[in-house]
Amino acid sequence: MKVLVINSGSSSIKYQLLDTETEAVMVNGLVERIGEEVGDLKNKAFPGTENEVVTEIQQPIPDHNTGMRLAIELITDPEKGVLKDKGEIGAIGHRVVHGGEDFHKSTVITDEVIAAIEACVPLAPLHNSANLDGIRVAMELFPEAPQVAVFDTAFHQTIPAHAYMYALPYALYEENRIRRYGFHGTSHKFVAGEMARLLGKPLEETNMVTVHLGNGGSITAVENGQSVDTSMGMTPLEGLVMGTRSGDVDPAVHTFLARNKGMDIEQIDTLLNKESGLKGLCGMNDMRDIHAAIEKGDKHAEIALGVQTYRNRKYIGAYMAVLGRVDAIVFTAGIGENDDIVRRESLKDLEAFGVEIDQDANAKRGKEPFKISTEASKVAVWVIPTNEELAIAREAREVLSK
Amino acid sequence: MKVLVINSGSSSIKYQLLDTETEAVMVNGLVERIGEEVGDLKNKAFPGTENEVVTEIQQPIPDHNTGMRLAIELITDPEKGVLKDKGEIGAIGHRVVHGGEDFHKSTVITDEVIAAIEACVPLAPLHNSANLDGIRVAMELFPEAPQVAVFDTAFHQTIPAHAYMYALPYALYEENRIRRYGFHGTSHKFVAGEMARLLGKPLEETNMVTVHLGNGGSITAVENGQSVDTSMGMTPLEGLVMGTRSGDVDPAVHTFLARNKGMDIEQIDTLLNKESGLKGLCGMNDMRDIHAAIEKGDKHAEIALGVQTYRNRKYIGAYMAVLGRVDAIVFTAGIGENDDIVRRESLKDLEAFGVEIDQDANAKRGKEPFKISTEASKVAVWVIPTNEELAIAREAREVLSK
Repeated sequence: MKVLVINSGSSSIKYQLLDTETEAVMVNGLVERIGEEVGDLKNKAFPGTENEVVTEIQQPIPDHNTGMRLAIELITDPEKGVLKDKGEIGAIGHRVVHGGEDFHKSTVITDEVIAAIEACVPLAPLHNSANLDGIRVAMELFPEAPQVAVFDTAFHQTIPAHAYMYALPYALYEENRIRRYGFHGTSHKFVAGEMARLLGKPLEETNMVTVHLGNGGSITAVENGQSVDTSMGMTPLEGLVMGTRSGDVDPAVHTFLARNKGMDIEQIDTLLNKESGLKGLCGMNDMRDIHAAIEKGDKHAEIALGVQTYRNRKYIGAYMAVLGRVDAIVFTAGIGENDDIVRRESLKDLEAFGVEIDQDANAKRGKEPFKISTEASKVAVWVIPTNEELAIAREAREVLSK
Repeated sequence: MKVLVINSGSSSIKYQLLDTETEAVMVNGLVERIGEEVGDLKNKAFPGTENEVVTEIQQPIPDHNTGMRLAIELITDPEKGVLKDKGEIGAIGHRVVHGGEDFHKSTVITDEVIAAIEACVPLAPLHNSANLDGIRVAMELFPEAPQVAVFDTAFHQTIPAHAYMYALPYALYEENRIRRYGFHGTSHKFVAGEMARLLGKPLEETNMVTVHLGNGGSITAVENGQSVDTSMGMTPLEGLVMGTRSGDVDPAVHTFLARNKGMDIEQIDTLLNKESGLKGLCGMNDMRDIHAAIEKGDKHAEIALGVQTYRNRKYIGAYMAVLGRVDAIVFTAGIGENDDIVRRESLKDLEAFGVEIDQDANAKRGKEPFKISTEASKVAVWVIPTNEELAIAREAREVLSK
């Protein structure tokens, strides 16, 4: 089956056309600057193969509908395209950020599902609204194809109450649904599945700590294949030190900033989401720039790396304690897959807990999964590239085959 | 030397007169409802002995000065008192909550010290102002005796930057001193010292996790006798689930409450400090009431206990990971010393990390330190009663002997 995967943002659409039989990527594309004076579209047919065809378009793209139409034209272009007709697309898989407590798994989109996603808008105002834009446009353009919603939060719906409840007035949970939801669920689920397969162990019997470190980052405790805790919370702001997000802070910081700097809550929200994290500490939010700056003796960059990796260690340790027995630790996503220094520092001093890293193996790079722990290490540590688009396509196929 | 220990709150003064030679408590007292229509004073001479004399006074106590004068009158009362003259008091030890980065240890109070404590008022508005009230009154009433400030934050000043920095704009640290400070330092230091003594190991070579669970609570990672991380942060709001304090929450909860409930930052601050924690989850903030309610099938009470002890486990696990090698875990303060269920749940599933609890030993109670781990347990786990007043008296004597 050919599945079109759509990740719709507030002014962008990422899309990928996959063949779920071969799991090959047929088209990879990105529409950006929707609503701006000039928009961008970059479309790659047969990406990474010798038949790759790259097309770039710059023109006004007033809305998501226009952007998606342009993409479909390229996909079905008689010369540059990969399909004769958009009717060949068997399903559309949508990334939806917040599914609240309503969605424990991927689901075919109906009017009720749309209403439920809409009801989660207060929990993720920017993300869910943009995801709904993508869904509406796709339903218009592909009235025949089934649409499947794949939620970032769904994998984490197995987290028990003692881990998802904040110590806030209970009514805020019942009436306003304030609780830990967790995100990156599609990625954590994907690498957990891959890890079990590589260990030759049933997923249902495998305990893991999965470490997703990209521009956003989260760590998940996986017990018998199920998420039992994760570092992101009600929103993707909680937890690790990210590119521009603070992660955990004293919840009294807000009051301090309001009283002493005269900031209002929206300014504080922007500060914590856009001006904090690695960028706040050292002015850079790309780990590669930070390593280069450390080489040149930049003290702030060194602190940023230290704070980021120390926070990772604390979460890994906490989740190892929660799990009791840990079969594997998995690193994934941009930084997790490519940054051996971050991995090394995040795993420091864990020997007493059965984690032994082979630093030569850790220094490797590769597009395939590779092991970075020693043979003697009780806990296997692996680097496994994540593939959220493939995971969404697989989910869509699976939902529809039932 | 006779040391008067003063813990001055916004409308209360706790005091204790100790003899540092024998470490006996000569007087124990509490002035409450200062500034209210009718104030309370409760004074115990020779508490807990057969010579105990309890005096209670109810009368208007307009200010700290009046309260302290009343206490001194009782201490030096010809009949009920323990001293002939207040001149016998060799030193006054003051608990000061926030010493910022200026105080790494206890110190004799001078004008400069008072100015520095004043400069920390923005970091702990209620606490530090009240502590200063106590210092000023004591300097007036005991012009001859040296006054010593003992800071809740001082023990934690050895925490390294990677653990004390939040991932916020660096300028907020440099200009506004936003960072993790940690509290309960006097208690963590006291039990860490006692633990090393009981293990027969030099403190400088002992790694520990110290768990202070009272109405407020914090957990500290102690490496070679020094604090290297602690769960409270810039303020005592961060970290564990406390009586009425939330501890850790998603830092986007504030924005959510402002947008969806129309709350302002001061209301949110009150919510997080006064209406959250155990009380928020189940309406009770006394652990004994919570256990009783669970017995009767109260689901909210069960969740409150679950959230509280699970948070403890995560911090204990995180700090074990940070320390690498752990010699001991120590429980102290009201709940830590007396609640075997909280201890049991907080230590669950840590067998893989060398922690083995003897549940019979854990069920014991006592005023003396007792061990609750099995003989085979790699990590020794102890219950050690804290004694902040004695610790402050010892600090005062030590500072003055130099």
